[in-house]
Amino acid sequence: MGSDLDSFFNPKSIAVIGASRNPKKFGHIIFRNLLEKKVFPVNPNAGEVLGKKCYRSIKDVGGSVDLAVIVVPAKSVLQSVVECREKGVKAAVIITSGFAEAGNAEGEEAIKRARGDMRIIGPNVIGLYDAYSGVDTVFNLRHRQQRPRQGNIAFVSQSGAFGSAALDSASFEGIGISKFVSLGNMVDVNETDMLNYLLDDEKTKTICMYVEGSKDYRMLYEKLKVSTKPVIVVKAGKTSQTKKAVASHTASMAGEAGIFSGMLRQCGALETDSEKLFGLAKAFSQPIPRNNRVHVITDGGGFGILAADALIQGGLRLSKLSDKTANQVKAHVPLYASVSNPLDLTGDADTARYKSVLPLVLNDDNVDAVLAILLMQISSLDSEIVDVIASAKRFKKPILVCMAGGEYTSLHRKMLEEKGVPTYSSPETAADALSGLCRYQKMMRLRNC
Amino acid sequence: MGSDLDSFFNPKSIAVIGASRNPKKFGHIIFRNLLEKKVFPVNPNAGEVLGKKCYRSIKDVGGSVDLAVIVVPAKSVLQSVVECREKGVKAAVIITSGFAEAGNAEGEEAIKRARGDMRIIGPNVIGLYDAYSGVDTVFNLRHRQQRPRQGNIAFVSQSGAFGSAALDSASFEGIGISKFVSLGNMVDVNETDMLNYLLDDEKTKTICMYVEGSKDYRMLYEKLKVSTKPVIVVKAGKTSQTKKAVASHTASMAGEAGIFSGMLRQCGALETDSEKLFGLAKAFSQPIPRNNRVHVITDGGGFGILAADALIQGGLRLSKLSDKTANQVKAHVPLYASVSNPLDLTGDADTARYKSVLPLVLNDDNVDAVLAILLMQISSLDSEIVDVIASAKRFKKPILVCMAGGEYTSLHRKMLEEKGVPTYSSPETAADALSGLCRYQKMMRLRNC
Repeated sequence: MGSDLDSFFNPKSIAVIGASRNPKKFGHIIFRNLLEKKVFPVNPNAGEVLGKKCYRSIKDVGGSVDLAVIVVPAKSVLQSVVECREKGVKAAVIITSGFAEAGNAEGEEAIKRARGDMRIIGPNVIGLYDAYSGVDTVFNLRHRQQRPRQGNIAFVSQSGAFGSAALDSASFEGIGISKFVSLGNMVDVNETDMLNYLLDDEKTKTICMYVEGSKDYRMLYEKLKVSTKPVIVVKAGKTSQTKKAVASHTASMAGEAGIFSGMLRQCGALETDSEKLFGLAKAFSQPIPRNNRVHVITDGGGFGILAADALIQGGLRLSKLSDKTANQVKAHVPLYASVSNPLDLTGDADTARYKSVLPLVLNDDNVDAVLAILLMQISSLDSEIVDVIASAKRFKKPILVCMAGGEYTSLHRKMLEEKGVPTYSSPETAADALSGLCRYQKMMRLRNC
Repeated sequence: MGSDLDSFFNPKSIAVIGASRNPKKFGHIIFRNLLEKKVFPVNPNAGEVLGKKCYRSIKDVGGSVDLAVIVVPAKSVLQSVVECREKGVKAAVIITSGFAEAGNAEGEEAIKRARGDMRIIGPNVIGLYDAYSGVDTVFNLRHRQQRPRQGNIAFVSQSGAFGSAALDSASFEGIGISKFVSLGNMVDVNETDMLNYLLDDEKTKTICMYVEGSKDYRMLYEKLKVSTKPVIVVKAGKTSQTKKAVASHTASMAGEAGIFSGMLRQCGALETDSEKLFGLAKAFSQPIPRNNRVHVITDGGGFGILAADALIQGGLRLSKLSDKTANQVKAHVPLYASVSNPLDLTGDADTARYKSVLPLVLNDDNVDAVLAILLMQISSLDSEIVDVIASAKRFKKPILVCMAGGEYTSLHRKMLEEKGVPTYSSPETAADALSGLCRYQKMMRLRNC
């Protein structure tokens, strides 16, 4: 169980049913995304698409086809599904909408009956994306929606629009993704199936989910309970008024938000909101802290104080350096610098000062995690700070970076992200992510008792 | 009272004391920022700076000097202040640090005694910036810290680093600023003086403040109480542990955070955190809503639900369209679209659909505000959407836009911001800003009872 979903992400061959010559059509965009793969266009009305010979039916393709992407009008989808099954296709993504979400529940039932043991994602999906295999069935143009770099966060979304916006933001911020999938109306593969698959996926370390509802909360619960990877969930439809909207959006049962939240806590899954989702997820690239004592190191006094406020309000503690460490630090900072927590290296702190002080703090047994604030506006910090921070990985303690600013800051944030250091635009979001790491550590400790 | 601070922002002539030929020095950067103004370099060790004749002392400058920027070493600051006063300078910004924040309280006392009736901002400041007059004494290089466009948000910061990071982010996001000032150690001009000045400033509609503490809370309270402009405050040093850090940072008395928050509420000022500051401030470019009934219009179902959840959780209500409006809207959307709240225009919504529907909703008496969600990843929306949204201003109801995504989205967000439409990267931040607008409306109603 689970491994049969691998044909979605690592197919040896792909057919795009509804591949089009019209560059505005989804069937064209998807086909072009896949040009570097072994891919066959299927379209009875075209001789060739982008230089590749076009087939009238998938059944005319010579050799086997692992994955079919179906992007024909709703009325032709059933016929395509039947032909795929007859061809022995292992997995199909049905992009086409116009089913249960548009009042056409019978259309979906017919697909369910026709699929046999072929696995189906959709209908009514934005597609799926695998940053490692390069499979990309997302129909949004790349200049409108960027594709993220390779990373270890997987994202399962019951909303296509939310999924594509999230992928787009992730790319923009330099966050790496392993796999993305939009689940749509879930005639077959649902959130629990994907979760199960991702738990075994080597490229995935952290799993994000956007959930409106589940047709089988018990199954989801059982799977979350045994998850060995952090699972982070955004739940939509939390109020009586929005539950109705969920029903008309993906025909899911939203359930009671309070009960759902309680279930997540019991399973050791983390609940967050859409704004904080990836900020929290990327923190898990860091080691899980042993405890919740955080040291703030800053070159801006005000930012240090805001960060300390946010950490304390988020249930964390400010660590206290040992006398030995404090004395060592004093040798590297101006006399008037406050060797405390926040540790204010003062506004003229250069890269060398961080380079001397950071290892001293990380080496202190009283410190479980570091929140480093780097303000790039003042000219003393140069780009070498990226390597200084990245090389502190060797201490096996979480390091999160807060960098607030514009163009120049954004460039350096991306450099850090690409080296696996999570960065945040404010002390509050950084503190929220650290607090999530510590909550996870606590829940895992309880679960393993 | 108050208008004497105008020499800081609209000086007829400026002297930079400590103007330097070395491009890395603050005295060089500041002087270069001001080259287009009537500006005199003062430095006994240079013949000229950037082609301008250099003076040994400010007293050698012919004609009067309104504003002096002092950027000499700490030990020479007092001498410069004395000379400025003798010259009849009206206002001085002391950039130099190394005073109370570094244990040199006597240095500050001496400056206080020497200033006479010359107004002083500082010492230990990042500088000030006026987007209209072009006065820019901020010493950060422009490629590291961008300068924001003209707008109507003023920002007063007791932290220089927080101030420069905030200005930098504002520029990056296309947010307009009227005036910015970093207050530093406040030997003279303090937060209340600046607030008082900004209340009369024609270019300023909304005032943001980063506050660590006040030497005179009573004064601040009295001024806030009569404010006719929205004032938004970020308070740092909210816990017993961070109050100590405040004392060593700007030598302020942090006070009890709970009492301070209560005071702000009583005065009708809004408290927020650093992450949400400008998001909330820019919402005030919109009309204040009459009530709290918000309509969500979206092209992504999931985003609509998240927004509705966030609005309800933020204490707002979802408006219900009149039957008449609902019927009119139905003529413009697909049969299966949900004409409800959220109003889901569905994933294929193009600019024309927003153009038809938006005025109908805004015209409905049951609607006090609109939260429009625009997902630019899907190809149906084009750049004309910017004008469609901007032209809906005529309905005199607040319109906030949520756009989540990467490069392409970011470009369109900036286009909207420049037309005065506030945009947000998530439903939660947009809802937070709307909720702030409604809280303000309620507080003002109570105050005017």
